[in-house]
Amino acid sequence: MADTSRPGRPVLGQNQYGKAENRVVKITRDGATHHIKDLNVSVSLSGDMEEVHYSGSNANVLPTDTTKNTVYAFAKKHGIDSAEQFGIHLARHFVTSQEPIHRARIRIEEYAWERVETPGEGAHSFVRKGQETRLAQIAYDGERWEVVSGLKDLTVLNSTDSEFWGYVRDEYTTLPEARDRVLATDVSARWRYHWADDAEPVPDWDESYARTREHLLSAFAETYSLSLQQTLYAMGSRIVDHRPEIDEVRFSLPNKHHFLVDLTPFGLENDNEVYFAADRPYGLIEATVLRDGCEARIPADLTNL
Amino acid sequence: MADTSRPGRPVLGQNQYGKAENRVVKITRDGATHHIKDLNVSVSLSGDMEEVHYSGSNANVLPTDTTKNTVYAFAKKHGIDSAEQFGIHLARHFVTSQEPIHRARIRIEEYAWERVETPGEGAHSFVRKGQETRLAQIAYDGERWEVVSGLKDLTVLNSTDSEFWGYVRDEYTTLPEARDRVLATDVSARWRYHWADDAEPVPDWDESYARTREHLLSAFAETYSLSLQQTLYAMGSRIVDHRPEIDEVRFSLPNKHHFLVDLTPFGLENDNEVYFAADRPYGLIEATVLRDGCEARIPADLTNL
Amino acid sequence: MADTSRPGRPVLGQNQYGKAENRVVKITRDGATHHIKDLNVSVSLSGDMEEVHYSGSNANVLPTDTTKNTVYAFAKKHGIDSAEQFGIHLARHFVTSQEPIHRARIRIEEYAWERVETPGEGAHSFVRKGQETRLAQIAYDGERWEVVSGLKDLTVLNSTDSEFWGYVRDEYTTLPEARDRVLATDVSARWRYHWADDAEPVPDWDESYARTREHLLSAFAETYSLSLQQTLYAMGSRIVDHRPEIDEVRFSLPNKHHFLVDLTPFGLENDNEVYFAADRPYGLIEATVLRDGCEARIPADLTNL
Amino acid sequence: MADTSRPGRPVLGQNQYGKAENRVVKITRDGATHHIKDLNVSVSLSGDMEEVHYSGSNANVLPTDTTKNTVYAFAKKHGIDSAEQFGIHLARHFVTSQEPIHRARIRIEEYAWERVETPGEGAHSFVRKGQETRLAQIAYDGERWEVVSGLKDLTVLNSTDSEFWGYVRDEYTTLPEARDRVLATDVSARWRYHWADDAEPVPDWDESYARTREHLLSAFAETYSLSLQQTLYAMGSRIVDHRPEIDEVRFSLPNKHHFLVDLTPFGLENDNEVYFAADRPYGLIEATVLRDGCEARIPADLTNL
Repeated sequence: MADTSRPGRPVLGQNQYGKAENRVVKITRDGATHHIKDLNVSVSLSGDMEEVHYSGSNANVLPTDTTKNTVYAFAKKHGIDSAEQFGIHLARHFVTSQEPIHRARIRIEEYAWERVETPGEGAHSFVRKGQETRLAQIAYDGERWEVVSGLKDLTVLNSTDSEFWGYVRDEYTTLPEARDRVLATDVSARWRYHWADDAEPVPDWDESYARTREHLLSAFAETYSLSLQQTLYAMGSRIVDHRPEIDEVRFSLPNKHHFLVDLTPFGLENDNEVYFAADRPYGLIEATVLRDGCEARIPADLTNL
Repeated sequence: MADTSRPGRPVLGQNQYGKAENRVVKITRDGATHHIKDLNVSVSLSGDMEEVHYSGSNANVLPTDTTKNTVYAFAKKHGIDSAEQFGIHLARHFVTSQEPIHRARIRIEEYAWERVETPGEGAHSFVRKGQETRLAQIAYDGERWEVVSGLKDLTVLNSTDSEFWGYVRDEYTTLPEARDRVLATDVSARWRYHWADDAEPVPDWDESYARTREHLLSAFAETYSLSLQQTLYAMGSRIVDHRPEIDEVRFSLPNKHHFLVDLTPFGLENDNEVYFAADRPYGLIEATVLRDGCEARIPADLTNL
Repeated sequence: MADTSRPGRPVLGQNQYGKAENRVVKITRDGATHHIKDLNVSVSLSGDMEEVHYSGSNANVLPTDTTKNTVYAFAKKHGIDSAEQFGIHLARHFVTSQEPIHRARIRIEEYAWERVETPGEGAHSFVRKGQETRLAQIAYDGERWEVVSGLKDLTVLNSTDSEFWGYVRDEYTTLPEARDRVLATDVSARWRYHWADDAEPVPDWDESYARTREHLLSAFAETYSLSLQQTLYAMGSRIVDHRPEIDEVRFSLPNKHHFLVDLTPFGLENDNEVYFAADRPYGLIEATVLRDGCEARIPADLTNL
Repeated sequence: MADTSRPGRPVLGQNQYGKAENRVVKITRDGATHHIKDLNVSVSLSGDMEEVHYSGSNANVLPTDTTKNTVYAFAKKHGIDSAEQFGIHLARHFVTSQEPIHRARIRIEEYAWERVETPGEGAHSFVRKGQETRLAQIAYDGERWEVVSGLKDLTVLNSTDSEFWGYVRDEYTTLPEARDRVLATDVSARWRYHWADDAEPVPDWDESYARTREHLLSAFAETYSLSLQQTLYAMGSRIVDHRPEIDEVRFSLPNKHHFLVDLTPFGLENDNEVYFAADRPYGLIEATVLRDGCEARIPADLTNL
């Protein structure tokens, strides 16, 4: 029996549905030279979906199985020029072909491959690069586009040029100041493109990804760091300064602690040589860097603990 | 050299920092009977943090190491009555003791343990329950509280009383209709409490968790389902109907497909007996159920693919 | 160009092949009451397989796709009484039906489900138990059987009745002795059955699993422990003493360290109350307990780091 | 009460213990140019350890905490020239310094890093390579050495030059023959060195690793494959032929199925272009390639399902 001590019957709020993690590999043959694209595509649709929640009527529901089929069919029909371009094809299709669907969001993970060099003409052998995973999220409501690209699991480390001191002390503070420490993180980043309108010229997604990644890595490596926040801001501001197509960048940076091991019980000095790489807990530094005047739209939590 | 083709210098947007995944185990001894609480606590603070990003000055920064120490010290000072109560102690402390900190958010995972029965008086042996992980998120800005509790990885399955038919068909639709299928999902749920003000009576967090979990399970089991969306809504509306302390529930439900294996090539019938449990892709159904008149505040994406 | 500085051309050694991780769910309907078996089955075959390695001839190769089909067909034909019995059906089939196959090994993981209680007659709703994973490995060479059962990921903890002192000290020893510590581990265990011959009566696999698991848990809980090795041996010897059908038990027990947090900097005592649960590194204790006179056959490494 | 229906009291069999997964990072400074070694080191010791199992006496037990300390102290004292050389230092130390310890086995995972190029003199920024994990296992009994090196998680793919046909057919065979398929696997490999005696010259471990990895990749890429077994044997025999320091190689190769998607329902051809990359089940092909006349010592199961 329902409790009636507080008014307010249940109503449906925001909802979305689709097929997640469609693994699609596309081989393109240019004579004996093959090219590979390796994606993990998740489709999320929303619109007039009250009835399927209230009564179970599927009259407005395009099955998630169909969204899966569409991903594979589009890989053939449109090819995969870039993750972003592929997502644009998909999002436009769902919103424009199905009246009850008002908004589509496509999320894509891309895994990079390198060639294995072989003698002779053929070029069809690959080894997975295994570094960061490239990310793209494309949202469309029939009028405006929102493209957020990014990466995750790019692990970087500076073995010097990092300090941490001058912080607040309270009754629970025991941390000694550090004048030379290791700074390491697994970069998780998302950047939002200015492009939102079919009438405007579309960015060169692959070029933009490559340059943005370079700026991010350079800023990490070249910043003499007094805090991981400072390094984060240096990475974001370098991107905003150099990539006019990008309006907003957000980072989630775990501070992967490398603790200097105390070797004095063994009669040994440890002059910043031997570290214990800890798992948990870790610092977690998160922030957005915006182009002045632009709206922040990337959600605060890139990862969900 | 920075690109100057678009105006707008970089500025700092939303930011937060803290120590994530502090694993704290608290043993309470009631004579020979011991009790255990096993938490994973993540602290996230925000406030006047411009300078640490712009110049690296840590003058406003309470070290994440200090937030870790505080977690352990508070486990001793205040005990751990419930994850929610523990998070309230922590959030209040950070916001009220540090002027530059304006908002604290504590996220907690709790792992349940059962007793191993032993002869004699002692009761200090435990086996981890291993079912769902209980979740709590406590946010405080010095005036208002926001408590969102929940769970993840509660895997449920109905072996009948589920159908799927009457859906939209387009040129990419090949799915046959199903009049009797397995319905299975890993429940990820969050529910937001009405309580927001120290002047109001605090809910009984453990009682609320236990009852909400029961309603959720019962609604899953008792709903004759025409779509996973319908089952989702039944779970959420049952909670809103029965738990006046809760204003909003959000679910993220992967449709864990169990495909009936075609055994006809082997001269065998398969009358809903033998299934292939697939990994990827999977349907993903997400929605909020709100108490009418309440505001939706739980973010749309509980998980980040 | 090959190096000829050492004689010895390459030759094929031990080899095996098959389809791994076939996820099969079997629903058995007893009127409105349903039963569920949820397995992950891996098939591994060996025999006259030289040519497929040397020349690529598949003339002796039953495709791994066929072994997958056989798993699903056998779930229908023979049902799944227990993981062990199901594995026996499969192993016998491969060895006796295919002349080139001389040995089959079936490995099975089983996931347990509990009922969700519902009003009315139906009983077809389940929640995954989520505790340990049950394991079974069945090997057959056409004459002899070897059945090794076990479990993994059973996490247990004693909050007292554990000490550690009186150990060897060398120049790298800094550990203080402990007179009262938390002892916790994730039990990984395998036990080998005496049964090897079709002419002998087959054990009651489910009964044996349930009793063995109970002995293991009881011995963990009831042993006053001076070392994790002592606890391990207590678990193994209790099983050998009470279960005549078992000849050999092997354990791999990570010592999941729970470090007492030093709260003295905060003016607080920590009387075995607040612990940091560490991830890595961890102690790793592994041993076999044998029935005297029996041969040891379970490999030394249950897990591969 | 113990069952006495079968004779045979419990006795201790093979046992080993130590500290697993010690994460050690070593920075070596050559002026402004830094070098990094990033290891995960697991120590396993065995010897006169009956009493610690039977009575809990730790009189022969060097604590696992001490083995952890030794790892960090040796990183300073001996440096980390290679994983293998570091493991040799550790194994020799434990066996020769502690009378009750008769055998030591050191397992090491190594994570590779690349430099991030920066202007100016400094070279102290790194990005984790993220491809395969390098492996080394060093065992010593006071007289003989056994060194097994290897790698895991090296993902490779050929987009053509793979066929699969001419296999055995039984009543459960439905697989169509393939004349042009994608062949992909995550290579897990171990190779055992001939070197076993301090009197013999030690291999150049890093050079051997680099060349062995090259042969493995080349053989994968250059083999026109009629079965994954044939490709496996080509990889192993190429190594035995070219690397005289290696006596034995073992592979565990999951056949990562890439299924050609049927696009005919959508009026589209799929001429080896669009694939579904499946997770489970997968073929699993495992074999040893030996130098003729050498003994096989690498265990059959590199991974434990």
